[in-house]
Amino acid sequence: MKLPPFIENRRDELWLTENERNNLQIRYRLKEIVFQHQSSYQHVMIADSHDFGRMLVLDGVVQTTSVDGFIYNEMITHVPLTLHPNPRNVLIIGGGDCGAAREAVKYPEVERIDMVEIDEWVVKACLEHLPEVSGRLSDPRVRFLFRDGVEFVKEQTDAYDVVIIDSSDPIGPAEQLFHSEFYRNVHRVLKDDGLMVCQSQSPIFHADVMRQTYSRIRALFPITRLYTAVVPTYPGGLWSFTLGSKRHDIPQMDPARLQEARYINRGILNRCFALPTFVRQMLEETT
Amino acid sequence: MKLPPFIENRRDELWLTENERNNLQIRYRLKEIVFQHQSSYQHVMIADSHDFGRMLVLDGVVQTTSVDGFIYNEMITHVPLTLHPNPRNVLIIGGGDCGAAREAVKYPEVERIDMVEIDEWVVKACLEHLPEVSGRLSDPRVRFLFRDGVEFVKEQTDAYDVVIIDSSDPIGPAEQLFHSEFYRNVHRVLKDDGLMVCQSQSPIFHADVMRQTYSRIRALFPITRLYTAVVPTYPGGLWSFTLGSKRHDIPQMDPARLQEARYINRGILNRCFALPTFVRQMLEETT
Repeated sequence: MKLPPFIENRRDELWLTENERNNLQIRYRLKEIVFQHQSSYQHVMIADSHDFGRMLVLDGVVQTTSVDGFIYNEMITHVPLTLHPNPRNVLIIGGGDCGAAREAVKYPEVERIDMVEIDEWVVKACLEHLPEVSGRLSDPRVRFLFRDGVEFVKEQTDAYDVVIIDSSDPIGPAEQLFHSEFYRNVHRVLKDDGLMVCQSQSPIFHADVMRQTYSRIRALFPITRLYTAVVPTYPGGLWSFTLGSKRHDIPQMDPARLQEARYINRGILNRCFALPTFVRQMLEETT
Repeated sequence: MKLPPFIENRRDELWLTENERNNLQIRYRLKEIVFQHQSSYQHVMIADSHDFGRMLVLDGVVQTTSVDGFIYNEMITHVPLTLHPNPRNVLIIGGGDCGAAREAVKYPEVERIDMVEIDEWVVKACLEHLPEVSGRLSDPRVRFLFRDGVEFVKEQTDAYDVVIIDSSDPIGPAEQLFHSEFYRNVHRVLKDDGLMVCQSQSPIFHADVMRQTYSRIRALFPITRLYTAVVPTYPGGLWSFTLGSKRHDIPQMDPARLQEARYINRGILNRCFALPTFVRQMLEETT
């Protein structure tokens, strides 16, 4: 098998190197490459690692792992689905590892989940080779649409209760998912009491992206909230999510609606909105 | 200057490699080595890195950095000093970067801080070359004792309101700071209403150490609580701290006593005891 450039075979050991701005490298020792394919959009790989089990790797960047993927997927899904009192129609943009959809189907009130992922190969690879994250998701409420999310939201109006933007980093295929125009279209596809959430990167390593995302969403939605969680395999560890809501705010939330999971529970739900002082200050500065 | 084995000069770039069980490597690109000295206990280094600024590195393992060191130091210090209603005498074991002592002096009720650090070179290096963490700490209430903390606690009785065990990993000089005998002596040096806290490693990567620490402390103290914070430069990101208290519990805590800082504030203070479901289950299993 030909090795992609970010994988090195050193004395019969496979090492994946993740490069963060050429200043920080995280290197994972692999047991094997389970799957790899160069799609039209990116290099898609499932690798089995010693410390994190199987991982989804896109263009050499670790996206989710068997060991800690549940944290991110629970936090991006359960928070909006608990905050909205009756989320029937859900749109997930990105989320090709199927982890967000897998969490969303736990809510019985959800009637339909449209999963718009640009790269079918990511979904195929995760459903088949990364069951720890995808749960081999198979639920009649989930409709897969292998399309560009940016184009998809231009065509809809007033259709969804909750939109979850589960993008990769704002370089490569996901770049436009961080633009104001995209958020305007997301606002439009939401019903009058709808809400959206997106991952908004690390307050430590990507403070500019976080601030910009927060300020773009705040320009469109009457209620904007940021919350955080720990994502051990993402550089910076502390990860942020930004909520934009047309009507529902945290004080109205009914924590009894939460479907508790491996990371999230009522205590975590209540407290994920409590921000470290330096993060709070960053948001105040964007005002 | 001779380079230690964990530093590599590659095409005029200095890279520090941290090895986690030979399965995960974190590599930091350095601007320069500011200070290094082989002490009687370990290799002590202050390095200036591109992504984390200056860092304290002991035997090749990053201990604290200018960018994120405040999170750990605030969390190990402010939580016990807020929980105890009147912390006058404080003992810090380890904590050679002076960051915990620097936070402790913010409490006006604290009359004396005994800082027992085995390796004088760590303190010297941080006071002089790592002001972002040590704050060039200079406060008449702080008494430096360059001694083995394990021996020190054998000699005292009934002397302290709060003991903070700010150790490095349980390999090398800090190993005995994780033993039951040491915790028994810590229990003895505490006054009747005293409390202790220690860093108890990552629930993801060092689950065994965390569980063991929690169960050893619970065997000695009527009240035991675990709390977490994000420490981006520690593998696993999510870090745990274990509190053992002879009398004071969270419900009695007066959050108004908290001296808010860059990471910690009243929201975070309340939030840090809300544990992810999988961590809660780990602790239940130790019962």
